[in-house]
Order: sequence, then C-alpha cells, then structure tokens
Amino acid sequence: PRKFYSANHDEIMAGYTTDIYFVKTRDLLKENGSLDVPVVAEIFSKEAGVFAGLPEVLSLLKDKGVKVYALEEGMSFSPKEVVCRIHGPYGAFGMYETVILGFLASSSGWATAARECVKAANGKPVLCFGARHVHPAVAPVMERVALVAGGCTGASCILGAKLAGAEPQGTIPHAAVLIIGDTVKTAILYDSVLPEQESRIILVDTFKDEAEESLLVARALRKKLDGVRLDTPGERGGVSPSLVQEVRWRLDMEGFSHVRIVASGGLNPEKIRLLSQAGADIFGVGSYIAHATPRDMTMDLKVIDGTPIAKRGRLPGIEENPRLKRFL
Amino acid sequence: PRKFYSANHDEIMAGYTTDIYFVKTRDLLKENGSLDVPVVAEIFSKEAGVFAGLPEVLSLLKDKGVKVYALEEGMSFSPKEVVCRIHGPYGAFGMYETVILGFLASSSGWATAARECVKAANGKPVLCFGARHVHPAVAPVMERVALVAGGCTGASCILGAKLAGAEPQGTIPHAAVLIIGDTVKTAILYDSVLPEQESRIILVDTFKDEAEESLLVARALRKKLDGVRLDTPGERGGVSPSLVQEVRWRLDMEGFSHVRIVASGGLNPEKIRLLSQAGADIFGVGSYIAHATPRDMTMDLKVIDGTPIAKRGRLPGIEENPRLKRFL
Amino acid sequence: PRKFYSANHDEIMAGYTTDIYFVKTRDLLKENGSLDVPVVAEIFSKEAGVFAGLPEVLSLLKDKGVKVYALEEGMSFSPKEVVCRIHGPYGAFGMYETVILGFLASSSGWATAARECVKAANGKPVLCFGARHVHPAVAPVMERVALVAGGCTGASCILGAKLAGAEPQGTIPHAAVLIIGDTVKTAILYDSVLPEQESRIILVDTFKDEAEESLLVARALRKKLDGVRLDTPGERGGVSPSLVQEVRWRLDMEGFSHVRIVASGGLNPEKIRLLSQAGADIFGVGSYIAHATPRDMTMDLKVIDGTPIAKRGRLPGIEENPRLKRFL
Amino acid sequence: PRKFYSANHDEIMAGYTTDIYFVKTRDLLKENGSLDVPVVAEIFSKEAGVFAGLPEVLSLLKDKGVKVYALEEGMSFSPKEVVCRIHGPYGAFGMYETVILGFLASSSGWATAARECVKAANGKPVLCFGARHVHPAVAPVMERVALVAGGCTGASCILGAKLAGAEPQGTIPHAAVLIIGDTVKTAILYDSVLPEQESRIILVDTFKDEAEESLLVARALRKKLDGVRLDTPGERGGVSPSLVQEVRWRLDMEGFSHVRIVASGGLNPEKIRLLSQAGADIFGVGSYIAHATPRDMTMDLKVIDGTPIAKRGRLPGIEENPRLKRFL
Amino acid sequence: PRKFYSANHDEIMAGYTTDIYFVKTRDLLKENGSLDVPVVAEIFSKEAGVFAGLPEVLSLLKDKGVKVYALEEGMSFSPKEVVCRIHGPYGAFGMYETVILGFLASSSGWATAARECVKAANGKPVLCFGARHVHPAVAPVMERVALVAGGCTGASCILGAKLAGAEPQGTIPHAAVLIIGDTVKTAILYDSVLPEQESRIILVDTFKDEAEESLLVARALRKKLDGVRLDTPGERGGVSPSLVQEVRWRLDMEGFSHVRIVASGGLNPEKIRLLSQAGADIFGVGSYIAHATPRDMTMDLKVIDGTPIAKRGRLPGIEENPRLKRFL
Amino acid sequence: PRKFYSANHDEIMAGYTTDIYFVKTRDLLKENGSLDVPVVAEIFSKEAGVFAGLPEVLSLLKDKGVKVYALEEGMSFSPKEVVCRIHGPYGAFGMYETVILGFLASSSGWATAARECVKAANGKPVLCFGARHVHPAVAPVMERVALVAGGCTGASCILGAKLAGAEPQGTIPHAAVLIIGDTVKTAILYDSVLPEQESRIILVDTFKDEAEESLLVARALRKKLDGVRLDTPGERGGVSPSLVQEVRWRLDMEGFSHVRIVASGGLNPEKIRLLSQAGADIFGVGSYIAHATPRDMTMDLKVIDGTPIAKRGRLPGIEENPRLKRFL
Ligand SMILES: [Zn+2]
Ligand SMILES: [Zn+2]
Ligand SMILES: [Zn+2]
Ligand SMILES: [Zn+2]
Ligand SMILES: [Zn+2]
Ligand SMILES: [Zn+2]
Ligand SMILES: [Zn+2]
Ligand SMILES: [Zn+2]
Ligand SMILES: [Zn+2]
Ligand SMILES: [Zn+2]
Ligand SMILES: [Zn+2]
Ligand SMILES: [Zn+2]
Repeated sequence: PRKFYSANHDEIMAGYTTDIYFVKTRDLLKENGSLDVPVVAEIFSKEAGVFAGLPEVLSLLKDKGVKVYALEEGMSFSPKEVVCRIHGPYGAFGMYETVILGFLASSSGWATAARECVKAANGKPVLCFGARHVHPAVAPVMERVALVAGGCTGASCILGAKLAGAEPQGTIPHAAVLIIGDTVKTAILYDSVLPEQESRIILVDTFKDEAEESLLVARALRKKLDGVRLDTPGERGGVSPSLVQEVRWRLDMEGFSHVRIVASGGLNPEKIRLLSQAGADIFGVGSYIAHATPRDMTMDLKVIDGTPIAKRGRLPGIEENPRLKRFL
Repeated sequence: PRKFYSANHDEIMAGYTTDIYFVKTRDLLKENGSLDVPVVAEIFSKEAGVFAGLPEVLSLLKDKGVKVYALEEGMSFSPKEVVCRIHGPYGAFGMYETVILGFLASSSGWATAARECVKAANGKPVLCFGARHVHPAVAPVMERVALVAGGCTGASCILGAKLAGAEPQGTIPHAAVLIIGDTVKTAILYDSVLPEQESRIILVDTFKDEAEESLLVARALRKKLDGVRLDTPGERGGVSPSLVQEVRWRLDMEGFSHVRIVASGGLNPEKIRLLSQAGADIFGVGSYIAHATPRDMTMDLKVIDGTPIAKRGRLPGIEENPRLKRFL
Repeated sequence: PRKFYSANHDEIMAGYTTDIYFVKTRDLLKENGSLDVPVVAEIFSKEAGVFAGLPEVLSLLKDKGVKVYALEEGMSFSPKEVVCRIHGPYGAFGMYETVILGFLASSSGWATAARECVKAANGKPVLCFGARHVHPAVAPVMERVALVAGGCTGASCILGAKLAGAEPQGTIPHAAVLIIGDTVKTAILYDSVLPEQESRIILVDTFKDEAEESLLVARALRKKLDGVRLDTPGERGGVSPSLVQEVRWRLDMEGFSHVRIVASGGLNPEKIRLLSQAGADIFGVGSYIAHATPRDMTMDLKVIDGTPIAKRGRLPGIEENPRLKRFL
Repeated sequence: PRKFYSANHDEIMAGYTTDIYFVKTRDLLKENGSLDVPVVAEIFSKEAGVFAGLPEVLSLLKDKGVKVYALEEGMSFSPKEVVCRIHGPYGAFGMYETVILGFLASSSGWATAARECVKAANGKPVLCFGARHVHPAVAPVMERVALVAGGCTGASCILGAKLAGAEPQGTIPHAAVLIIGDTVKTAILYDSVLPEQESRIILVDTFKDEAEESLLVARALRKKLDGVRLDTPGERGGVSPSLVQEVRWRLDMEGFSHVRIVASGGLNPEKIRLLSQAGADIFGVGSYIAHATPRDMTMDLKVIDGTPIAKRGRLPGIEENPRLKRFL
Repeated sequence: PRKFYSANHDEIMAGYTTDIYFVKTRDLLKENGSLDVPVVAEIFSKEAGVFAGLPEVLSLLKDKGVKVYALEEGMSFSPKEVVCRIHGPYGAFGMYETVILGFLASSSGWATAARECVKAANGKPVLCFGARHVHPAVAPVMERVALVAGGCTGASCILGAKLAGAEPQGTIPHAAVLIIGDTVKTAILYDSVLPEQESRIILVDTFKDEAEESLLVARALRKKLDGVRLDTPGERGGVSPSLVQEVRWRLDMEGFSHVRIVASGGLNPEKIRLLSQAGADIFGVGSYIAHATPRDMTMDLKVIDGTPIAKRGRLPGIEENPRLKRFL
Repeated sequence: PRKFYSANHDEIMAGYTTDIYFVKTRDLLKENGSLDVPVVAEIFSKEAGVFAGLPEVLSLLKDKGVKVYALEEGMSFSPKEVVCRIHGPYGAFGMYETVILGFLASSSGWATAARECVKAANGKPVLCFGARHVHPAVAPVMERVALVAGGCTGASCILGAKLAGAEPQGTIPHAAVLIIGDTVKTAILYDSVLPEQESRIILVDTFKDEAEESLLVARALRKKLDGVRLDTPGERGGVSPSLVQEVRWRLDMEGFSHVRIVASGGLNPEKIRLLSQAGADIFGVGSYIAHATPRDMTMDLKVIDGTPIAKRGRLPGIEENPRLKRFL
C-alpha cells in the first residue's frame, strides 16, 4: 500500500502528474497524424520574479530530442519576458506542459521571496527555516532553491541543504529545552555534545524573558557562546526592534559583544530591515519564503510546422530574447 | 544521478526532510537520558480552516508506539483549536515534527480554498485544475485533497484523481486546437476518438470569439456536444458574467439548451458566485486552490512525564477538545 | 405645434431662456429709474479650465451698446481669474446674465475636457464622437468647440464639423455591418461607394474577434485599407492595451504596417495614454468630452455708476487682468 | 450670418446633427439594396434612472412609418432594461440614431437628478434654477423635464416653465439689490410693483448678515412677506443647517412665523435633507440637476428581416419588457 | 519668590486667572453705566459628554447675588444642550466667564473619558492612575472627578482620593522592586509592613516574564496574595489578551484562583473590553482619562435687561431645558 | 471649608498630589534599610516635542540634596532622548516621581503646540487665548509656557502674562458689545476709556457681517483703529481665507491699510498658514494649544548604588546625552 500521496521521481517521469487532457491530446494528434509536427513553444510569466526550477526541467527533457533555450537559474525576469523556449516535435514534450510549468512556477516563487529577504539583510546571513510550512516531498526543493537561486546562506532541512551542497543549520527546538527543563542546563549539555567546530546558538525564549535568559546563557558558556536566538511568540509581542536593541545593550554591558543575535519568527523583508538596524546579526525566515505565491507560468505554441501562430490574446511567432542561453 | 529534487517516500520516512535541529535534539536527549520520556504534544493553527493531511501523518506514525487523536479529514477547525494530539515517548515522534506539520499545513491550506469554491458553486460541479501551479511531486497531493477534503467534483491531474478514487477529467488544451488548426475540426476529431461514455466538452476561445465558436461547435456536434469551455484570456477581458449570459442566450436561441457552459481562468469564490448567477454550469479552478496559503500549524509539548508544562506564551497541560477521535 | 423643446435662435435672442427674475428686475429698475445706470460686470469661474463660448456671447451683445473684454476663445484660465468684463448700461445686458453664463459654462466645460484628451494623445489625432450623449440642439455646439477651442482633429456630427470649418469624419456603424451581414463584405462595398480621397476605416468588432476581423479586412482591401477601428464593448473587456498591441503585431506580421488602429469606446486621458503607448494611432472620444461638468461661471456687478461695489463675499471694484482683450 | 451654434428645430429634423456615419450607411445600404429592410431596434442604458425625452423622439419619428414602444415619460428604469423599441424599415429611422439617443440621454440624466432632490425634500417644494449652467438652447429642455418627469414644483427659466405648463418662478437677483443699494428698499419697491397674487420672496444675503437682513425685511413688509431666500456664498460658509435654524428662530421670536425660508446655492439631496430638518421650507436647485451625467443610451439592432441578430456582446432578438407601451 | 506657576485658590477667587478683556469690559461698562444690567447667560458644549466641575463654579459664585441653574454633577448632556444658566447683574459674574468655562471644560472632559472606561469594564473596578500626566495642581481635580462623576472605583493620587471621600489606592512602583532587587523579596517585605486589612497586589513585570513572576509571587505569599499587576511595557508587546489568559491559566493550574489580575498600561475602553473577556479583574487607567480633550464650553448672553438677544450664530432668548435644577 | 479642588503650592510641596504607592515605597525601603541608596534616574518621552516645565521641577528639588541635569526650557527633544537626569539618594526625590513627571508632561505638551503655531505664523504675532479651555489653576502655567517656551507673543490670561514678564493682551468680548448694543458705539467708548498707548482692536462679528462691521468701525475710529478681530462662529462658516481677503480688500479700498486683521476661532498651524497667505496679521490661538496632548514622560532608575540596572524593556545604565546641562 502507498505510504504518501506525493509522486515519486519515476511517477513524474512517467507522466502520471500531468493533466489528463495532454494525454487525450496525444491520442487525438496521433489519429490526426500530426503528433510529431515540429513546434516552438515559449514560456513566460505575467509577473516579474527570479527564475528557478530549470535543472528539473532539463532532467525531464534530456534525451527527448528537443532543443531548450532558457534564462540561467537565478536570473531576474520581467513581466511577459520569454524565460524558456523549446523547439521539437510536439509529441516529444507536449504531454509534459503541466509538469514543466509546475517545476518553474513553484521554484521561481520561492526563489523570488528568498531573494527579497537576502536583499533586505544587505549582506547579513539569511537562513531558510521553511520546511514545516510545506509538504515534505517539496521541502528540499524549496530550501535548495532558496540557497542556490535566492541567495540564502543556510537551510535547516537536511536534504534541502545537502542538495544545495551545504551543511544543514539550526539550533535546538523548544521541545529540547522543555524536556531538559532549563535553558542554561540545556545550553551546557548542548555545548558538551556538539562537535567543537559547530556554532553554539541557544534559543532563549522558552521559559524566561529573552533579555534575562540571554544573560544567563552568556554567563554560563561565556566565550564559547556564538549566539542567542530570539523567537518571541506573538503572544509576547514577537521579536521587536526594541527587544533586539535591549538584548544587544545588556550583552555588551557584561562584555558579551561577541555573542550574535539571531532573529526568527514571522520575518519578512520589512521586518528584516528594521531588526537589522536595531542590531540583529542573522535572520531565520520561514513563512515568507514558504508561502510565496508561485510565479504562474504560461506555455504558448508560437510556431507550428514553420508557421508563426498563436491563440487569441498572444503574439504569433518567436519573441526574441537575447538573454536566453541554449541548455539542450 | 538524482533526477529531481523532491523527496521520495523512503527519504521522507527516513527523516531526511526534517529540520536538522530535531536530529541534534535526539542526540542531546539521548545524552541526557531523557529521549524516551513520555510526552503529550498538541497541534493547532492560529487561523480557521479545513483539516486535511491526516492520512499521511498516520502512515508516518503507524508502528511508532504512539497514540494519535485528531479531527477527521475534512472537518472545519477554529483558530487555536487543538486539531491533533500525540501521546508517546518523545523519541518515537519528536524528530518528525517538521514533517507532520508540513503534511497538515499544505493539505489544510488546499482543502480550505477548495471548500470555499465548492460553497460558492452551491451544488454545481467544481473541477480542480491546479497541477500546473505546483511542483509535480505535490500536484497529486493537492488535487486529491481538493476532492476528498474540499469537496471538488473532479481533478485533471491523473495521479491526483486516481488517489481520490476518481477518473481524471479535462477537455483538450489550446495546443491541440492550434496544431489541428481549427476548433470545429478538432471537435469532430475529438468526438470520433473519445470513448462513447465520456463527455464532449470543447474549448472555444482559441481562434475566434467565444460566442461565435460556441455556435460553430454546437452546430457541428449537435446533440453529442456536452459543453463548451470558456477560458478567455485576460488580454480579452477574462470570462465575465455578460459573456456567459450571451453564450447561454445564443445557444438557447438555436436550440442548444443541453450544452453546458464550463467556466475557467482565474476563478475565485466571488467570481464563481457571479458566473453561476449568469448561467455557468461547471467551474474549473486552478490558482485559487493551488496558491492557497498553507494553514500554519504549531506543535507544542503540553505534558512531560505527567507534568503539565508549556513554553512561554502557551497554556500548560492538555486543552480538552471533545471533537477529537482516536486514530492510532 | 412645437416639434422640440430646445430654444431656437430667435427665442434665445428674445430672452425667453433667461431666468424670470431678470425680467422682474428690469421692471423694478425701470420703476426705480435706474435701469440704465452704467455698470461694470465681471465673470469668473471657481475652477480652472479652457475658456470657450465667447462668439455666441458676442453675437448676443453686438449692437447692445456695451463694451466687452475677454480672454480669447481657447485660452486657459485660473481659478477666480476674471475671464470676461462687460461695461455698459445695466438694462442693455443684465437680462441676459443667465444666457451669457450658460454659453460660457457649457462650452468651457467641453473645451476643457477635449483639451485634456488632446494633450494625452500627444500629437496623435483625437476625434470627437460625443453627439449621441447630448441633446441634438447642442451637439454641434459641443463638437465645434472640441475642435476650435479643445484642439480635436475631427468630429462626427455633421453640423458641428461644418461650423468648425471641417469635414465631418466617421466610419460606418454596427448597424450597417449587421444589415449587410458580414464585415468583409461591408468593407468591400464601402470601398466601392466611398469617394477615392476619403479614408477607408473599418469597424472590426461586430461579429468576430477584433484580431481575426482586422486581418480578414486587411487581406480584402490590402493597400486601400487605411485603418481598423477597435470599439470592443465592455462585455468583451473593452479596448485594452494588450488588444491593441496584438492587432498591431498580427497586422505587421502579414505586411499591413500601413493600416492604422483607431481606438474608441469609453476613452479618457489616462486610457488614451496607455493605448497610445500600446500602438493606437487615432482616438475617438465620446462620453469624456460630452459628460464634462460645465465650468460654472459667476457674474458679479463690481462697479455701479462709477462706484466700486460688490455683494458680500466678493471684492468690490474691477480686478485687473492684463490678459483680457477688447472684443466689442 | 448664423447667430448661435445650436441647431434649430428644422436642422435637427433634417438630420444635420446626426453623426456622419449614419449618412454614409444610408448610401451604402441603398447601393446594397437593403436600406429599407425591416428591423427591430432596442434602446437601453447600463445604469438605472428616470426615463425622459420621449416626446421629442416621437415628434421626430411621427409620420416616418415606424412603430414605437417605450416606457412612459417619468418612469424609473433598471440597468440594461429595454426602455424603447422601434420596428420599421431601417431607412426610416436609422439615420436618427444619434439624435434619438441624444434626446433620451440628456433628458433622462436631468430627470433622474431632479427626482432625487424631490425625494429628499419629502413633499416640500423644489425649484429648478439650473438655466445658467447650460447652453440656452437646452435650458428649457432641462427645466421642463425637471418638472414634468422629475417632479420639481417650479422653474425659473421662462420658456422651460411655459413648456411644462407652469408659471416661471423666482425672486430678484443680487444685481437688483446692488443697483438699488439696499435690500429693504428693494423689497418695498418689489412689493409695490409685483402683481398682488404673486409671492414676495426676498433675497437676503447681498449686503448684510442673513439673520439681520431677514428681520429688516420682515419688519418692512410684515404680513405681505412670503419668504426670504438664503443663498449664502461659499466665501461665507454657504447655507448651513445652523443658519436656517437661527433665521427661523429669530423670525418666530418677532412673530414672523408665516415667513418661509427658501434655501439655495449648491444644494444636493443630502444637503436638502439636512436643511429640511433644520427648518427650510423650499429648495432652489441648480448645479445638481444641470450637471447630471447624461444617462448613456445604446441602440442595438436585434432583429433584421425577421431574424434575431445582435452584435458581439449583446443578446440577439427581442428582450421582452411588459412595461413598454405603444406610442406610434 | 513664587514656587510654582499654578494659581492658588485666592488668586483664582481674585480673578487673576481670567482673560484681561473681561477686566477691560468691566471698566467699559462702568463708564457706560451698564455694568450691573440684569442678564441671563447660558452655557453649552458642541459635543456630548458627562457634566462635571459644578461644585467649583458654585464656590466661586456663592454670595455674588446670582441665580444658578445647572445639570447635576455626573449627568450626561447632548450636543448644544444648555448645561448651566446664570441670572444676575452682569457685573456680578461676567468677569469670571473664563474661570467658569475652564472649571467645566476640564472636569467634563475627564469625567466623560472616565465614564467610557467604567462602562467598558461593565462592573469590574476601574482605578484612575492619571496623576503623572498632568500638572500636580490639577491632579486631584482630575482624580476626584473620575471617581465622583465618572464612576471610577479608586484613585492613586492622595489628595484626589481624599477629596472624593476615598482611600488612595495603588501597589508599589518599579523603583521599589529595582532597589530591593527581586520581586519575590519585595513582595514578602511588602506583606510584612502593610496593615493587615490592605490588599496585597504585586507588580510582576520588572525583571522577569510576567507569567513566571506571577507564579513565583503566588508561591511565596499564597493565600495572602490578592492580585498581580500586569503593566508590560510596549517594548515587550504591552498587556495583551493572550498574556492575561495565560497568567490566569497558570495561576489556576497551581491552585491560585483567588489571585486577581490587575491590568494597566495604555488602557482604553476597547482594550478594557478585550482584556476583561480574557480574564482581567481590575483596570488601572492613566492616559486615556488624563489626555481627555476638554469639553469646550461656550457662554452666551441670551437676555439683557429683559430683552432676548444673542450674537450672530446663536439663538436669542432662553432655551428651555427641564433637566436643569436650581443650585444658587 | 475648601473652595476649590486644585492643590495649592504648599500641598504640592508636601507631596499630597503624588501617587500613594510612592509613599508606600518609602515605608518599605525604610524597613529594608535602603531608602537612601544612591541612584540615578533618567526621564524621557516616547514622542518628540519641546521641553518645558523645568523651573517648577527645580523649585521642588532645590535643597533636596540631588544633582539635576536637563535640557534647557524650550529646547526640542527627540523620541526617547534623555531630557532630565537626577542623581541622589532615592529617598530624597523618589516620592516626587508623579509630581515631576506631571510638571514636565503638561508644560511640554503646551509648549510643543504653541511652537507649531508660532512656526506656521512665520514671524507674525501669535497670541495665546487658551485660558477658558483649562482649569483656572493651570491657566497661568499654560499661558506662561506658551510665551516663554513656545514663542507666543502675548497671552490674555492676566496671571499667565505677568509670570511671563508680559502685559496681558486682548480686546473686548462679545458680552460687552451685546450689552452696549452696537459695535460702533462700543468701539468709540472703548477708544475713549483705553489708555492712549494701548492698541484699539475691535471684535467685528457680534451683530453684522464682518466686512460691513469692519468698515463701520474703521470709519468711526479712522487712524486710531489698530485692528479688527475676525472670530466668525462655526455657524457662519468660521474665519476663512476668502473672508480675510475680502475684509483686507474693502479696508484698503477705503484707505484703511493701517488696520490690521486679527484672526481667531479654532485656529491650528494649517489654518494659520492659509489665513496668513490671505492677509491676516495676528493670530489668536486657544484650543490648539490648550488641548495639546501632554508629552508623556517616563522616569527610569538606571543606576542603583553604582550598578547599572533597568527594568525589563529599558537599557540599564546611563545613556549619555551631551545636550544636558547641570541645573542643581
Ligand atoms: Zn506557513
Ligand atoms: Zn519560540
Ligand atoms: Zn499559480
Ligand atoms: Zn484559454
Ligand atoms: Zn453619455
Ligand atoms: Zn462597437
Ligand atoms: Zn454648473
Ligand atoms: Zn447669493
Ligand atoms: Zn499622558
Ligand atoms: Zn511596568
Ligand atoms: Zn477647549
Ligand atoms: Zn465671535
């Protein structure tokens, strides 16, 4: 019996996740003798964004006998700009329209949101903590693309980070602190089991006020403490600029200037900007990236058997775009 | 080499899509001797919605030695209502927090949006056409849940429909009409190859004005035509109530009252309401369901080793909810 | 019996369209022996605009023994700027206050709106198609002033155009196409009956999609076709920039670059700007000009028998304005 | 030489105020042999309103050999409701499309606005003082329709009132008071020259505060004074509820309860409601009626030679409306 | 040398705080022989509110030979309702116009705001803590009126409470906790020095999270603890409903259901409503009462020497109000 | 028996207007032996403003054995800027926290509002007429600070002006004109009794229109008239730019260019700007200054016995501010 409802790689490859009408189309065109007519298809989005998802499209189309031109992974695109063009017999790729657009829409949505956060942080590290917001089948897709195309510095999802060629990053969750029963005790234990080269960053909002707990932890680990993570829940006002400023001030006052402040919890580009000004050093972003609206992609046939054509509402024939590069 | 970046079922099961800090937590608690302390965890969302994703959670936790109470798939929940409660040794399920929340957040988001459309259609069929908006690994998850928990009547994604125990539905795409070169010719060919019991629904906005093309197709297929699909692009004003009303009027005037009108293209609950009043019979919904914001879920430890507890900002101890039912 | 309710020229001249209280005033002042006291009256508007209607005022006051200073027809005026000053015995013109203000308010309102459209078109022709929005008695007043004071290039109202010294312009209405039953057939017939020097501009939204019909017409008339008129009804989304762009593209693709695009239907300055950028060449404007709010005019007595005076709320005496010129 | 630019009745009748393209259409259809094909045309407005202008349409079409069905003058209509239907040979009336729509649009706009004021006054008299806002050729059209279709009680335009079968109403303007130099003196003179049966209503804001002047005039004319007119300029705060209330109070205090208060100056339905509550008895309305946006009318051919037809965007064939009545 | 700039009682009585022009008026009228003409003056406010300040007005006018009618202290009044009427020789009280209006405007403003809070609390106690927002000379005026006319239960200002016949209420400030250095230690000490019959209410947001500190204090004082005061600063999100709910839950869980929750810090009627629903028992209000906009009062002479009169804009003569009662 | 509820100077000095909890604190700390621990307290406001009230604070703390640093009276401060710092034994000043903050909050609020008006007047005189809006005990505090810290030119409150070292200013109230019964007669009488060196400014809106009355008064006093005061009530539209402009024009026309225009009645900075452009010369401001929201002040202990400390939400230790100056 099937464990989960997500499609495995071989199911995607076999076309099981496409829309049924592309299968019907194949039958129809076969009957009509035009299944393998040479066509040119172009893909664009109505909104601007950051282009991503291409490697999966190329994996899908490799050895299908088509030529593929596209922007490079991570390039920005304008509204209605052609981001990908496919030349080949319709039968060779037409059935995958749904799949190709799905790869690009999802990944470009996440990459665009990640890029906005990275720009707001203006050089300070941004970590992607979005895995809990999406189905686990795509969590690694999202976290990988946030790093590779969006510019994030790290990701907490194990497989996502690995696919991006990085080590997964993170601290310890509230659960650990609650079970051990005391933040300082948890910090000391954490320090004792963690490999020496890894960062000691402690979550400080489980039991006590963040300013108090930051100092208690800093006094316990001293030079070995790399950072404290503020993740104040909405029920306590969230992480605010004045909280960051106060924690910074109190740490500095006791000589803990080396301790960095990691902020997380409902961050978005605007909050990142404000918290950065208030003194935060690292930003953990979840929902803003994970909830990104997909960048809807449209694929239009623009040339059929050498003739420029298009459905009503679109411009027939190829729309030149010198930024495209040949990949297949 | 890996074809796609999505996680296969065995990778999810093995914990590769969880956040790294849950792995660190396991090590820490093992060191501390408290990995298998008995705990009670509760899950809630800050926003109201329709609960979905439970079957995947149960697949994951089966044989893990935990008890699971939850709402039933498809039930509505209130803000902050406990939707799921897990009793068991922390080590048995703690590592899967990310995965469990991801299953529920994604599916509940999609189910909630689908339910809104179904309510707006007030008894008329709603079809889920959202596959092209999401990564193909989760397209079947979404389309299945739109039917099973959201109440949609059909889905176009092959695997999605099958998992919901339904036949995938759809017509033919613009590509087929463009290659064959004429909507009427396409309709006749489609009629000749389609198994007799399947519906003949023809897309009528590729080349000509929808009202004109609807009549041409109806005159060609006559009694055999089941419906026409209006999918007018934004460049031509989208599908509007006045267009639906006119197509209905013109079809009726020539005796084609049996031909149903399928509307699609950027529909949402409000548009469904207006188009239904204007005479549309069936609704194809893509982005409104696929773009649904995940219903963010939070898991809190509420009892540890028999003692009520909670992190700052939450209420310690179990919050009774008589609507929960035991599943494991 | 009277055919229509509008006033003929002799009725206006005879004072039948003035407010009754000016007649009573005449009787009163006669009784008082002050009917022919010398006065100075000034006219202004609270809002800025384009001054128009002066020739009708001058026709009315000619041979009445008054001096008239005014801005020139078509000049812009500022809020509260004196636009006209009349010196003379009160009895010579006082009774016409209503009539004078009515001439100026109406024409200045239309001229102001026309000027805004002309500015938005930035050198491309603007045609006034507003006759159907107003009573036929004033349609020629409006269309004439739109050309003469507002700067429009042409008008469709026969008398209006003639009064402006222009040839009336227009294509053929939907009615002709509907009766002939086919746009292409109509175009060919139109071409055959129209004098050679007149423009062949064909309305292309009666039966089919505009892009399709534009090409059919262009293929039929080829070099003889001067333009196509897009007048898409609101029920089909109106004339949008993307429609203009597509029609342009498709015409060019088949070598019909010489065919100009005329846009009409609910245009206003903002839409003119957008459609012009998208490639439209000529603009037909109806309601924006015809619905223009009259520029309300106020006439104040400012000097009576040599003494500066004014009612409460106004400044007694002449307010100098060097831009005024003597006309009578 | 022509005195004014407005069209006289014979010019309208001769078709000089129609759009040129209807003339071209006549030539075209004559050539095509279909000028006198029997057609049915329907007229509607997109917005709701009060129907007016019909008598002029009937004057135009009388003896043209057409049947005319319409709402009655003064009836309310709904958005898109058919308000007029014409049966006959196209050649008999097609050329007048512009003229017919112009009659109806203008008059229905004014009637709608007048009706709103009359409703707001809730039984108290409303006088139309709008002549100075429009070209004198249409001032009588507007004032007549405000009475006959809109429900106003009186009009100041001499010809307008006469056409409505009423006596023109009004007081005396600021000019008379300014020339005579004193409001009380003007009132006494006015009383002495006015026929006994006419109302003595005196304008009280020319020189002094309205409350002061009202008392001065009332003390002078006593029982013979019928009313005072408050017409405070915007520069003094306009006519406000508190002003009306105070004038009422001061008049009553000195025993002048029989003196009615006439309010004018920028009134609209909302202000009428407030001033009526404060004690105003009669309302003079100018710009709100005169500036009314025309109710745009559309004429569609719906049947040609017995066949239901319509241009794209409209419903072919007759749309039944049992409220229509046959007039020709 | 003068210590402060506020006026002492004898200075007020001597007229030193009145506007200079009332002094000049006295001289002028004396010269004119009309200083002691009998007049009637009426006082009203444009806005609705709660009437207060009367006792001070009566103290001022006692033995001045005037009759005073007024609403009773604490009654609500409507916009423009006469709230006070004075009969007497102008010279006996005219000079005090400024002073009389000042007494009433200030106190009615404070009483109105206090009443709104009391209504929002719906029976639960409201304490006035506003002294620090106003000059100390008027702090007792405000706190007294908040109790006597507004309905507050207690006040913290010593003199204010005494004047209202109550005991001043309050806990201990942050300063005490900071100096003693620990909230629990402070609580114990406080308990030991406080007379037995007084309430033990402890401020719990100085050093630690409020939920944590509440439990620590409750465990220390147990049955003797009457309440905890939440006064969370804006820098920590203020006092929110979820904080109140959590503190209540945690106190109850440990058996401290008798401990009441006092909320303070930027409260207004809307926040009081929300916090009350969340479980707060007592409300401390400062700025909402202290910042209340004065209810501007106007005094008009309405009768002079038996003749009704009023300045422009007001109604001459007495306006009857049966709610007034004679006080002097 | 007590005449009024305001506190006299000796009551303030004795601490009767402080909050009761500071008295309890004193007892507590005495018990604890820490009443006279050396501390540093800092005062700030969350909003920007103009600093005022310092002289009263210094009067209070003189001879108390504390050091006081502060901004100078009348300096602007930024949000959260330290405006005052007190060093000394807690017992020496802690009890006065309420009083100190009250002095500063009230006076800084008034000073800030006055300064805004003065800036808007851009060099023309601004007079403070606010006494009637506040309790007479603080009227002199407000009017004094409006001059000394806010920059106003004059004040009407007798004691307020004196404390600022100025002569109280004002004209005559409506009451005087009403009793004398005529504005011109009042003006002549006023001129005859007023010392020669004082300004003759006459209030001109009691009985007649302002423009009329201004001329009547000017013709009566001629060269001796210094100004007219426009104070039009809201019931007559208030003082508007067009009224000012007209009065100026009419005065100039009759040669009264030396007569200045004083505007009053609901002025605020924006209205001052507009009236000044229209020609007003002097501005009387009441409610805008008197209703100013107090600038809330917070006092925090920042150092106790040499150790930097602060409550949660604040930064421990002294925050340097080089703008502070030592006063005690
Ligand atoms: Zn989420
Ligand atoms: Zn947290
Ligand atoms: Zn999408
Ligand atoms: Zn489509
Ligand atoms: Zn119109
Ligand atoms: Zn059209
Ligand atoms: Zn007007
Ligand atoms: Zn007037
Ligand atoms: Zn305050
Ligand atoms: Zn606090
Ligand atoms: Zn006030
Ligand atoms: Zn006044």
